[in-house]
Amino acid sequence: MPLQWSGGPPDLLLTVDRESREPLRAQLEGRLRDAIRSGRLGTGDRLPSSHALARGLGLSRGLVQECYAQLRAEGYLVTRVGADTRIAAGAFVPPGPTSAPAAPEPLTADFRWGVPDLRGFPRTDWLWALREAARTLPTAALDYGDPRGEAQLREVLAGYLRRVRAAAADPHRMVICSGYAQGLGLALRALAGTGIGTVAHEDPGSPAAVAAAAGWAGLTTVPVPVDEQGIDVRALEATGARAVVVTPAHQWPTGVALSPERRLALLDWAVRRDALIIEDDYDAEFRYDREPVGALQGLAADRVIAIGTVSKSLAPALRIGWLLCPPALAAPVVESKRVNDRGSPALDQLALARLVESGRFDRHLRRMRTTYAARRTALLAALAEHAPDVEVTGLAAGFHAVARLGGHHDERSVVAAARDRNVGLYGMSACRSAPPRDRYGWCWGSATSANGPSRPGSRRWPMC
Amino acid sequence: MPLQWSGGPPDLLLTVDRESREPLRAQLEGRLRDAIRSGRLGTGDRLPSSHALARGLGLSRGLVQECYAQLRAEGYLVTRVGADTRIAAGAFVPPGPTSAPAAPEPLTADFRWGVPDLRGFPRTDWLWALREAARTLPTAALDYGDPRGEAQLREVLAGYLRRVRAAAADPHRMVICSGYAQGLGLALRALAGTGIGTVAHEDPGSPAAVAAAAGWAGLTTVPVPVDEQGIDVRALEATGARAVVVTPAHQWPTGVALSPERRLALLDWAVRRDALIIEDDYDAEFRYDREPVGALQGLAADRVIAIGTVSKSLAPALRIGWLLCPPALAAPVVESKRVNDRGSPALDQLALARLVESGRFDRHLRRMRTTYAARRTALLAALAEHAPDVEVTGLAAGFHAVARLGGHHDERSVVAAARDRNVGLYGMSACRSAPPRDRYGWCWGSATSANGPSRPGSRRWPMC
Repeated sequence: MPLQWSGGPPDLLLTVDRESREPLRAQLEGRLRDAIRSGRLGTGDRLPSSHALARGLGLSRGLVQECYAQLRAEGYLVTRVGADTRIAAGAFVPPGPTSAPAAPEPLTADFRWGVPDLRGFPRTDWLWALREAARTLPTAALDYGDPRGEAQLREVLAGYLRRVRAAAADPHRMVICSGYAQGLGLALRALAGTGIGTVAHEDPGSPAAVAAAAGWAGLTTVPVPVDEQGIDVRALEATGARAVVVTPAHQWPTGVALSPERRLALLDWAVRRDALIIEDDYDAEFRYDREPVGALQGLAADRVIAIGTVSKSLAPALRIGWLLCPPALAAPVVESKRVNDRGSPALDQLALARLVESGRFDRHLRRMRTTYAARRTALLAALAEHAPDVEVTGLAAGFHAVARLGGHHDERSVVAAARDRNVGLYGMSACRSAPPRDRYGWCWGSATSANGPSRPGSRRWPMC
Repeated sequence: MPLQWSGGPPDLLLTVDRESREPLRAQLEGRLRDAIRSGRLGTGDRLPSSHALARGLGLSRGLVQECYAQLRAEGYLVTRVGADTRIAAGAFVPPGPTSAPAAPEPLTADFRWGVPDLRGFPRTDWLWALREAARTLPTAALDYGDPRGEAQLREVLAGYLRRVRAAAADPHRMVICSGYAQGLGLALRALAGTGIGTVAHEDPGSPAAVAAAAGWAGLTTVPVPVDEQGIDVRALEATGARAVVVTPAHQWPTGVALSPERRLALLDWAVRRDALIIEDDYDAEFRYDREPVGALQGLAADRVIAIGTVSKSLAPALRIGWLLCPPALAAPVVESKRVNDRGSPALDQLALARLVESGRFDRHLRRMRTTYAARRTALLAALAEHAPDVEVTGLAAGFHAVARLGGHHDERSVVAAARDRNVGLYGMSACRSAPPRDRYGWCWGSATSANGPSRPGSRRWPMC
């Protein structure tokens, strides 16, 4: 039965409930804190004596005294010798108003890019891998770990990357990170430590993502144009930058592969300029016409920092990525990771190791390749039939497609017209560092129309 | 049966195995890449014609041609029209040597601080929570999420912190992060954005951890002495700093609680100086003699950034922490988290929400409190019997104890003598920003002697 006490001054109603599972003292303390926070009790307000309050609520005086002592220790109350107990000056500064984020508008179909088909996530396999990892977890693995990540995952991933990406992957120089975004930040931070002040990036590309990570690391950015062969290495050289972020296997977003000549020219530039290449290997698992080209990192492990992620192959919410570091940069990248968050969660890493080791990861990739290839075919067929003047460019790879607008259409009006029909299309101008001179295009996320509405707070960044 | 081809020039031995599960083309590509990387094939070396190599290995010429085309696309090989296929210039820059980390020396007992008893980790409960979270995970939760973290966990944790820590916890202004280290970095980064250039910290305290995070955020640090009442607020004021990191509930490492007068003086300082207080609430769940004092953040949610973690209550390897942000700092902290890693892993967060909601977290804490209290009692009894001149100070709280040395002993020789007996003791001078004037002390991790040898690469930092 609730017990009430109402007395004055101050005009204070306090209620405690003997039938509640919450102890009486905790209830009373909570009510008093709430009264102070809500402003019902202000600075200097006098509280009833412990005797009066105890009698009023039918509690022991000792309990009320303990409660007052606790709130004094926390700074809510002051008691001067021989005087009343009062609310302390400055005991509570009320916080400002909060606002909830706006709900996203629902779309019939959302061709948002950069996110895999999340319904395809191998939920059962992942849970199996977590269980296996938890079951066999040594007690010591619950401690702070090697900031590079779990040795078991680094071994397994290095083997995978050697096998599938022709990478020169050394587990000692691999750092497990929280997805591509953190990997890029760690890499740029390490470059900043070597005296590099500017990082170049592809245009079109991910100007916002690179700028954010560069800002975090104290670097400035400069765009370099991309043509049918990939990044223009002469234009890169002309910028004077000594670092560049590239997507050689499948350029984001144009979808071209860096040509063999450009690959060698880029490596030559790096050696001559003592420069570093950051290779974003974001979706290399998904190529439908032939094997993807191997990682650039495999050619020059001293000059290339390769960054990978499971955000495209499994799901972004896992937040697992990795860096392959050149020998000279391994120590600063590891130190950055240690200072940043002391390493990624251990159990998730061990689960991923299990998933790859057991062959379940490869099986999942085979299944998703079939799915994405079929969707790409359907998209191309639909465009050929219904919009023959729309030219789709880029490799048969990944889970996005780039279309160039024919005739006199412009990107903004096409995107707006689609939105009027509750269809989410996303223009490529978001991937540009400045308005382009050629025809605008747009980008289809061929995998994600079925993921449902995007989540509040998740911005639509091209990739990370 | 392995097939070999050996021809010259170059003097090259290539082997493929028809009985292997690896496709023949992948085998041949792998062998050629390895030969280039290992230096067996150098720049300009001529490869056999596809015809000769195919005949030598008993493969189809088309397969060898595809293999050469792949390696050309990757930049390992060049073929000029009408000429031989050769190893490309700059095709491979060999990486430098790697070194494995040194193995830790084994100890009979290790009183390492800052890590809970990992054998007590509720493995079954955590796996149950993971399973429940995975089972009920909406597909959209596999996407990039709100950088603040999962709404469900923020709601549950805010309720927990209001209940247990008397915090003014608003889930809209809570940010889930990867443990205390990342939380501190994000907080300091946000402060740097407001024009604050220096952050003060307690001395003794965690000078190295604060300095690392401050360096990351571009801030400098200044130490402020701690006495029996906690941080010296007058000395803090004299530094001119407008931000401070404190451990009010249980000062690290001295173990004192910030006195009521100091709590109010600290808040008064913050209001007068327009300063911010970072409250590190690292082990407040563990107090054995009475309830812990409530969080300082509950008194002044506009002036205090509270940071919590499950590293002490569950395990460091989970890498889950949280920040409670004042309204003015919530947006920059969230933006920092987004740029840093786009949010923490979703499934782990949802599992923690389940663990707390289900009451299993509280049950685990009750069990661990009993364990740690008993160990503390045993330690005090053993010291009273065997080393009566060693004075143990600080509250009956947490899972470390601080002992002051009596007589003419000095810290370094006691630590060295213990190490000679294969016992790990850790001196408090690591918690000092400069050699102290008073007697050196040392710190007992009363929970961790049974955790086994520490893991390679995990540094012994007081706390994070």
